[in-house]
Amino acid sequence: MTIGYDILKERPASEVRAAIRGCEYASHTAGLGRGLLQANLAILPESHALDFMRYCQRNPKPCPISGVSDTGNPMMFTLGADIDIRTDIPAYNIYRDGKLAGSVTDILDLWQEDFVAFALGCSFTFENALQQAGIALWHIDHNTTVPMFRSSIDTVPAGPFSGKMVVSMRMIPEARVDEVIAISSKYPLAHGAPVHVGDPAKIGITNLAAPDWGDAAPETPGAVPVFWACGVTPQVAIESAGLPLCITHKPGHMLITDVSEFAEVPNYKLNEPKGVNR
Amino acid sequence: MTIGYDILKERPASEVRAAIRGCEYASHTAGLGRGLLQANLAILPESHALDFMRYCQRNPKPCPISGVSDTGNPMMFTLGADIDIRTDIPAYNIYRDGKLAGSVTDILDLWQEDFVAFALGCSFTFENALQQAGIALWHIDHNTTVPMFRSSIDTVPAGPFSGKMVVSMRMIPEARVDEVIAISSKYPLAHGAPVHVGDPAKIGITNLAAPDWGDAAPETPGAVPVFWACGVTPQVAIESAGLPLCITHKPGHMLITDVSEFAEVPNYKLNEPKGVNR
Repeated sequence: MTIGYDILKERPASEVRAAIRGCEYASHTAGLGRGLLQANLAILPESHALDFMRYCQRNPKPCPISGVSDTGNPMMFTLGADIDIRTDIPAYNIYRDGKLAGSVTDILDLWQEDFVAFALGCSFTFENALQQAGIALWHIDHNTTVPMFRSSIDTVPAGPFSGKMVVSMRMIPEARVDEVIAISSKYPLAHGAPVHVGDPAKIGITNLAAPDWGDAAPETPGAVPVFWACGVTPQVAIESAGLPLCITHKPGHMLITDVSEFAEVPNYKLNEPKGVNR
Repeated sequence: MTIGYDILKERPASEVRAAIRGCEYASHTAGLGRGLLQANLAILPESHALDFMRYCQRNPKPCPISGVSDTGNPMMFTLGADIDIRTDIPAYNIYRDGKLAGSVTDILDLWQEDFVAFALGCSFTFENALQQAGIALWHIDHNTTVPMFRSSIDTVPAGPFSGKMVVSMRMIPEARVDEVIAISSKYPLAHGAPVHVGDPAKIGITNLAAPDWGDAAPETPGAVPVFWACGVTPQVAIESAGLPLCITHKPGHMLITDVSEFAEVPNYKLNEPKGVNR
């Protein structure tokens, strides 16, 4: 039995995850679990976990860490009461020797005692906030994937993890750019403020009509291209590291956490506004 | 030759670090390198680094990670161009088997090829901001150490690291508490917003006049006690883990980085306001 997107959209996060876990839903998570932090996923062996965590710490805009599992424990207990990372994501990508080797809907058979799971904040969070402020996002209105580009911005390496920063692009009316910067900077766990505004060539992008990932979005009169650090960056770093086995979410198919989008810190038990206990 | 605090106060961070490195200054760093992020220090062997980094990620209010070294490399290259963590802190505490075994002014002889150095944000940052807003801080005006208490708030464990959250207390005029919360919440790399406002008993503190660390500050009429997560928390977790050898800064004797206090992300190369390149 499958549950439709429109029904799931109105359900709380625990029910959405239950539907995903029960194989009743295996599609994208945009718009689900409204108000809650969604996360990209990277699972890799403990032997590379410290270097990967250092890579994320050094590149917090593309790789904002929202949760890290204990080694071998699939329960992401800081992000929700019942999150089993082996089953609670709608679709997973399996990488072997740095190459995509297939997609699956659970990783119960692939889970290893030496695995460490990383949850990294994603752009859905600030996109919701921009839409609520009345800023239209072309890719959402046209049901396409946001255009993403390999920029000329170097990330800070850590061990085998390195590479250029991948950025996502959204056309923003010139008069609202400052507002967009202010809104997105409120979400440091979701890429924060843009990394670049204006001329794409300044960050090594020669053709906005030919994104490296996702779908092209048209240039709009009176609007400027605004670029955010993108969660594909760690996927590229993982691919280029060429680890024997590593698992990510399938793009768009995120982990829905119990952490508020407005949380000061990524811990669902500390979800009080700004964490202050009075 | 030694250089006086009043002279150093007017010097840029690189000169302050040079004086510390050259053994010309070995005292506290409050008020030095104005406008720059200062950091607590924890150095431990790589075998415990992943667990310690998970502990900090899970407890970001007491343990905000601002930088992590490569294993065996003492240069903290994300925090400044020339920071050698073996020499650039005025005084270090050496812990053996979880017990304080002495203090030194450099660790050139103690540095190991398997060491990983962690820099963690400290309260100096938001204290400067509060003072600039005209909010008096008793311990600074009276040249004492801020009172710190072992609270009843549990931290989230990771491997051998666990324990209660240590909090620092500042008396704040009741009418300015909201402002103080708003100001300190701008500095998530420096403990962010308070964890508790008001009745100390609610977080397990029975006697404000008897702090566990630092000096008592008097209760002031019209003021309420405000409690922040404190950087002594990871020191307590390290002590209770009982590692054979681990090194921290001596309290008050911090690392002065080249990262702006206002930086969105802890990387001195990305110090543009909010990191936006336009």
